[in-house]
Amino acid sequence: MKRREFLTKTGTAAAAAVAASALGAPAVIAQPKYQWKMVTTWPPNMPVLQTGADRFAKRVEEVSEGRMKIQVFAAGELVPALGVFDAVSDGTVECGSGAGYYWAGKVPAAQWFSAVPFGFNPQGINAWFYSGGGLQLWEEVYAPFNVIPRPQGNTGVQMGGWFRKEMKTIDDFKGLKMRIPGLGGKVVAKAGGTVVLLAGGEIFTSLERGVLDATEWVGPLHDLRMGFYKAASYYYYPGWHEPGTCLEVMFNKKAYEGLPRDLQLILDTVAAETNLWSLCEFEAGNGAALQSLIADHNVNLLQFPEAMMDALRKMAEETLEEEADKDPMSRKVHDAYKKFKAQVGIWGTVADSAYFKVIADEYQLKKS
Amino acid sequence: MKRREFLTKTGTAAAAAVAASALGAPAVIAQPKYQWKMVTTWPPNMPVLQTGADRFAKRVEEVSEGRMKIQVFAAGELVPALGVFDAVSDGTVECGSGAGYYWAGKVPAAQWFSAVPFGFNPQGINAWFYSGGGLQLWEEVYAPFNVIPRPQGNTGVQMGGWFRKEMKTIDDFKGLKMRIPGLGGKVVAKAGGTVVLLAGGEIFTSLERGVLDATEWVGPLHDLRMGFYKAASYYYYPGWHEPGTCLEVMFNKKAYEGLPRDLQLILDTVAAETNLWSLCEFEAGNGAALQSLIADHNVNLLQFPEAMMDALRKMAEETLEEEADKDPMSRKVHDAYKKFKAQVGIWGTVADSAYFKVIADEYQLKKS
Repeated sequence: MKRREFLTKTGTAAAAAVAASALGAPAVIAQPKYQWKMVTTWPPNMPVLQTGADRFAKRVEEVSEGRMKIQVFAAGELVPALGVFDAVSDGTVECGSGAGYYWAGKVPAAQWFSAVPFGFNPQGINAWFYSGGGLQLWEEVYAPFNVIPRPQGNTGVQMGGWFRKEMKTIDDFKGLKMRIPGLGGKVVAKAGGTVVLLAGGEIFTSLERGVLDATEWVGPLHDLRMGFYKAASYYYYPGWHEPGTCLEVMFNKKAYEGLPRDLQLILDTVAAETNLWSLCEFEAGNGAALQSLIADHNVNLLQFPEAMMDALRKMAEETLEEEADKDPMSRKVHDAYKKFKAQVGIWGTVADSAYFKVIADEYQLKKS
Repeated sequence: MKRREFLTKTGTAAAAAVAASALGAPAVIAQPKYQWKMVTTWPPNMPVLQTGADRFAKRVEEVSEGRMKIQVFAAGELVPALGVFDAVSDGTVECGSGAGYYWAGKVPAAQWFSAVPFGFNPQGINAWFYSGGGLQLWEEVYAPFNVIPRPQGNTGVQMGGWFRKEMKTIDDFKGLKMRIPGLGGKVVAKAGGTVVLLAGGEIFTSLERGVLDATEWVGPLHDLRMGFYKAASYYYYPGWHEPGTCLEVMFNKKAYEGLPRDLQLILDTVAAETNLWSLCEFEAGNGAALQSLIADHNVNLLQFPEAMMDALRKMAEETLEEEADKDPMSRKVHDAYKKFKAQVGIWGTVADSAYFKVIADEYQLKKS
């Protein structure tokens, strides 16, 4: 009903504009409208994740002078969270928002475009996408499914997770029931853990009841909101399993290719702008949330022991090679990822890493 | 001549479109055109810096369906490099591209929006701009000059510079003739150095002839191109004086406010997209260039000694306070900068810094 009413009004406006043109008055012509639907894997109002998708849609509308309008549906409102890729692929909707590792069952190589254990941080993965051929490769991976991907966000380096016991050696992973998705989960399984997959809404209760011994989520901004500190008191860093998770927007190929070139570029440009904005939101919000967790909620903030990181890193390398061997596209992506990592890695060591070392003592963490 | 010809053609097309509308045919109405000029502080074709300004203009034209066209002039082509701010301010041109510290003589507080010694890295300064109130403050600083600023690029953490002798202690700065701009230069002066200001084209010869003992420029990608390795063999890191220099695009207030809202947002969005792209270009290019400098040109890559960093950092804090005391706006900006730094700093230590420590040994630097 509403849509029909809208179209009628638009038609009237266009007719009026045409009439005005014929009379030589200043023309305000109603352009053809594109009405799209976007489905996401995020709960309604989830900060940065869902609000970032909302922001993307709003800005596309503004920048396109209203020629394009995207209606956003959170997880479950139109399709289930994990049905997003299929809905975009089969053209049920024109676009979707999620993260590559959610489609690992159907597109194993997609995982490399979201998070790789001990892989790129945000700066590295963005450089790979925009200046190192990563985005073209990602397009190639999604092409058989008629889906066109774009980076749309980045969580930054995540936290290592919430644990109900202190983690002293790599052996503490043996028998540990942990909620952890993607390639990181496969590494935990290799270390002897039992990997549990749960949707966001079920994690807290499972952790509180001891069904889970540990969980990872995102970073302080989101973890504080989830209340995990009430169910587990050890909060570990850094998030070796997701050191710069990329969030994606996906377009149905036919829908995207049916747009005029300037609207395609508006989608691409606003996606990149949202990508940058989201990392800034995480960066600005995580610090304050972490301080609140420590000061107000008495969380034990702990760094994973070095020997444990070394062991997990070795297992991660093995895991990545094993996963890459399972299908040719994963192998192609993994090799390209490694090649670019070798190219930029030395620079990260000299620039960012050395600089962080210089300013390291500036911020003393209050440990309980 | 060309402009007139263009306007005539546009007029004809618009008339034809109006005629077509009157007949009920699909309307392709020529919108009002905005023809702008952009002047920059960069030499022609300088990678990322000038090519980034060119890319910005091209994308604005594409995204706006050609409604807006920006003609870009490199340094000296229309106004001198350091005349960019004034040209935008007085409306000689509608926009410009540069970096805040170039206008320190006229707008001291502008320096905080480009590079602060021992200050934000790219992730931190972007978070301040987009999610921490930094951009609004920057707008306030430029408002009296009728200039509207937007972040348009970031060099990433820079290199510490090229030195003709090894730098062992803070005393080695005494009497050192170094080319280094901005607040970093003031710190070197405090350490006893003689700060020399030279435009890009004059640095190499001065360094080769010993008129300079040292110079900083940007990072490996640009430094390799400048050939500094032929004149100084010690290449130091990290760039404590410019740990994430922001490049800016500026709009004349009247020109910007005369645009329809969607074109204003196109400028803003493309500026942010260019900001992200430029950091990616630096990230992707610096690693390969650094490896070439070490492997092909036998450069001595050295890290500044810890004690020297500690001493410079102390001097930087003093310098920043002294500069902030010189005018009320600088004080306001410096205090806001420090406040946001305290908010995000703890997070950088936990997330990025700890993660870099974990992967630090992945890339062994070849030292000569």
